[in-house]
Amino acid sequence: MSTGSAVVRVEVRVELKPGVLDAEALSIEKSLGLLGLPSVRHVTTARIYDLEFSGVSAGEARRLAETAVDRLLANPVIHRVTIRPAEPLVSP
Amino acid sequence: MSTGSAVVRVEVRVELKPGVLDAEALSIEKSLGLLGLPSVRHVTTARIYDLEFSGVSAGEARRLAETAVDRLLANPVIHRVTIRPAEPLVSP
Repeated sequence: MSTGSAVVRVEVRVELKPGVLDAEALSIEKSLGLLGLPSVRHVTTARIYDLEFSGVSAGEARRLAETAVDRLLANPVIHRVTIRPAEPLVSP
Repeated sequence: MSTGSAVVRVEVRVELKPGVLDAEALSIEKSLGLLGLPSVRHVTTARIYDLEFSGVSAGEARRLAETAVDRLLANPVIHRVTIRPAEPLVSP
């Protein structure tokens, strides 16, 4: 299969920057304490977007993922973004 | 530092099972097409919960994370869950 028709998967991880209030994480911390798991000291959350590209190289896929992040997936004021090749798919 | 006082971080990844409608992912696919990125063929989303434990071993932390998943973080009817040791923290 040529590079031009291969499927390339890129994982975009979007999380809140340190210092930005993560209300969901705080709610989970509180709930876990109430459920009897007080040893959970700290919780952070992140959102993963797994983007599957066709007809582009790995480098191009990464560049397109950066464009998608800039234009749709993240807010640079509050979000920290990590882009990396996605791990192979696992069966359910 | 003894195992008893070390900090153990566990990453819980919650995603929709195949076949369950991921409305957010579909919306992103459509939006990226409209924004001029039609080579994004497929999008999937996932939620990451990074749980930080203190005063427990790695094995115990995993067991506690499984309890947290069962009781709070995921719905076994629609969600597929992956639990693994969290990657080391990166600076912002």
